Amino acid sequence: MAKTTLISPHGSPTLKILLLEGKERDDELKRAEKLPKLVMSSRETGDLIMMGIGGFTPLEGFMGYDDWKGVCQDMKMKNGLFWPIPVTLSNNEKINQGTELCLISGETNEIMGTMKVTESYKIDKEFECKNVFKTNDPEHPGVKMVMEQKEWNIAGPVKVLSESYFPTDFKGIYQRPAESRKIFMERGWKTIAALQLRNPMHRSHEYLAKIAIEVSDGLYIHQLVGQLKPGDIPADVRVKCIDKLVELYFDKSRVLQGGYPLDMRYAGPREALLHALFRQNFGCTHMIIGRDHAGVGNYYGPFDAQEIFFQLWDGALECKMLPIDWTFWCYKCGGMASMKTCPHAKEDRLFLSGTALRKSLSEGGDVAVEFSRKEVLEVLREYYASLTEKVEIKMHGHATGDADTKRK
Amino acid sequence: MAKTTLISPHGSPTLKILLLEGKERDDELKRAEKLPKLVMSSRETGDLIMMGIGGFTPLEGFMGYDDWKGVCQDMKMKNGLFWPIPVTLSNNEKINQGTELCLISGETNEIMGTMKVTESYKIDKEFECKNVFKTNDPEHPGVKMVMEQKEWNIAGPVKVLSESYFPTDFKGIYQRPAESRKIFMERGWKTIAALQLRNPMHRSHEYLAKIAIEVSDGLYIHQLVGQLKPGDIPADVRVKCIDKLVELYFDKSRVLQGGYPLDMRYAGPREALLHALFRQNFGCTHMIIGRDHAGVGNYYGPFDAQEIFFQLWDGALECKMLPIDWTFWCYKCGGMASMKTCPHAKEDRLFLSGTALRKSLSEGGDVAVEFSRKEVLEVLREYYASLTEKVEIKMHGHATGDADTKRK
Repeated sequence: MAKTTLISPHGSPTLKILLLEGKERDDELKRAEKLPKLVMSSRETGDLIMMGIGGFTPLEGFMGYDDWKGVCQDMKMKNGLFWPIPVTLSNNEKINQGTELCLISGETNEIMGTMKVTESYKIDKEFECKNVFKTNDPEHPGVKMVMEQKEWNIAGPVKVLSESYFPTDFKGIYQRPAESRKIFMERGWKTIAALQLRNPMHRSHEYLAKIAIEVSDGLYIHQLVGQLKPGDIPADVRVKCIDKLVELYFDKSRVLQGGYPLDMRYAGPREALLHALFRQNFGCTHMIIGRDHAGVGNYYGPFDAQEIFFQLWDGALECKMLPIDWTFWCYKCGGMASMKTCPHAKEDRLFLSGTALRKSLSEGGDVAVEFSRKEVLEVLREYYASLTEKVEIKMHGHATGDADTKRK
Repeated sequence: MAKTTLISPHGSPTLKILLLEGKERDDELKRAEKLPKLVMSSRETGDLIMMGIGGFTPLEGFMGYDDWKGVCQDMKMKNGLFWPIPVTLSNNEKINQGTELCLISGETNEIMGTMKVTESYKIDKEFECKNVFKTNDPEHPGVKMVMEQKEWNIAGPVKVLSESYFPTDFKGIYQRPAESRKIFMERGWKTIAALQLRNPMHRSHEYLAKIAIEVSDGLYIHQLVGQLKPGDIPADVRVKCIDKLVELYFDKSRVLQGGYPLDMRYAGPREALLHALFRQNFGCTHMIIGRDHAGVGNYYGPFDAQEIFFQLWDGALECKMLPIDWTFWCYKCGGMASMKTCPHAKEDRLFLSGTALRKSLSEGGDVAVEFSRKEVLEVLREYYASLTEKVEIKMHGHATGDADTKRK
């Protein structure tokens, strides 16, 4: 068999890996301990790890002003490279050019990396939000994140010293691009579709996934294991749901599961593009884009995230979109279908809002097997039951809030 | 909206249409009546009509020796153009170069076209069959057709004067490439998958079709309305089945139905390539290739017709394959699935052989709705009932045989 050639990383023939290992890492760590410290937000830490493992190839560090502005405005870096969302680091004050910094995770207090400052600049946050999120509404969780950034952006190349808790907490799921690429090569896959997941996988996601498998060599189920907004299902529960589903309803030889360390930005269309970009770095040729991809609330039209792919210039992005319409079970079709394939009426289709589903699951009500596999529902019921216990404990004054959304 | 640009025809920026119309046709017809006659087989007549309407763009007539040999051996015409199956015309004797001929349909006795002879040559039929059909077995219906050809092949450019009974007998289904292209343009479709059909459409075909719709702008259900082997379901019954299915189970805005005048050659892999080639002329970007495409008996491996696409040289064929695995209903999946997406056991899957289906339908037995839509089964039951009546009449000495497979 001919040797498989995978898709090249974004804008580079090889992965740009900024993570040090072995002695190099030990030496840099010793050096870092003596440097002035900059404490990063959870989002910044996730971005740093992605740069470390090559997920954000070919970035070499946090973006400077020209890159920030070009990315916000035209999705184009100073050197002409396509990039859809700023990757920036903020600080309360300006830092002199040439200063070396020790980068600390605000979440775990761990030393995550070092950085040599090339530039400090102030940004127009409204401008960033308007361009990236299409809204300035402070209720938007991505906008909120930007508005909470500190006053100065600090740019410069980074060395990465840790992947934090991801390799241990998400053992077997968390994966570096070099690892997914190695497995794709070994399996001889040429066309690989990525499925972005930040929710438990119900039958509608399963349908997207299976369409992708029907038309590709393999599927990369790639879960976000970074932070979500409060109230979303935490990563460990989602991992359990997807494990069950893959075990019982997929041909495992056609599927690879992986997890990546980013926080959700909820930037809808722009984030869909980022999703495709870094999936290319993980070795994927296609990115599944369904309804309201990476959206939140009603900020984006249901298919804005598909439309934006058509607006890119030629050669901007090699990883192609696999757009799929709104999917559901249709009783008249007698199967899963989408708005493109089902001609029947609304009444013939099974729709279940997130709210209705949560109510059913937490109150022990029935959920149609056409909506979700019973084995997945079991995992979710267990999770909701544990939440109720926590809420009950809390009502008796023994616990602090938010136990469901914070990592252990 | 931007103007849609469709895929170019094969090897040509525009369709090569050899069909004359209006006064030009009338004049040529008058001239033809006085020319020496050559009577064509059904296959040759179908090929001629395809050249007439541009379905075989860029061919200008029946192939000469060099083209015949290159096509058999390397799927390459003398000028380097990809072509997978010889398009030839045969005669009992050699005909002088420069002779003009009137081409007659052996089926209807109608004048179909004229031809200016450029070459007469003998062929090694065994060589053709070995290369094109991968077998010399005279039981193979395509081999049989070649072996029954007359001794000499006559080559030369043609003018086409009729589409025979296709436009009237298959009104609303029979379509020229210019017509399908016009509709694709009007609908603004960019990616169009063709579904080849020569059988009634059961749920497995519906599943192929719907996967294609999920990942394309539109589906071209393109039926063979030429001749099949005895015992197959005739075209008018198949058209009725597909009409029902599209009416009740498809979003009609995503589907176009069409019919083409060729006879089946049952050449498996080579015919799959021809199917993709002429679908490109009809405006399609993708050709669905399922299990045992264009096969018969056990002459081809179930996925030989997919494999052959990977063996083509770069640029040979613009219309791409959309390969889909063996599909079926799986009771454990609770839906349609394929060998790629279903991990369950054989016993969990619904398989029904053609023989078992025919038995059920003709004896009034039940057929699972997971195998075929009840409205499609009704059409087939009606057809089998009419066959039984004919057989009964025949047994009383009032009818001739084969009433089920000959055209009315």
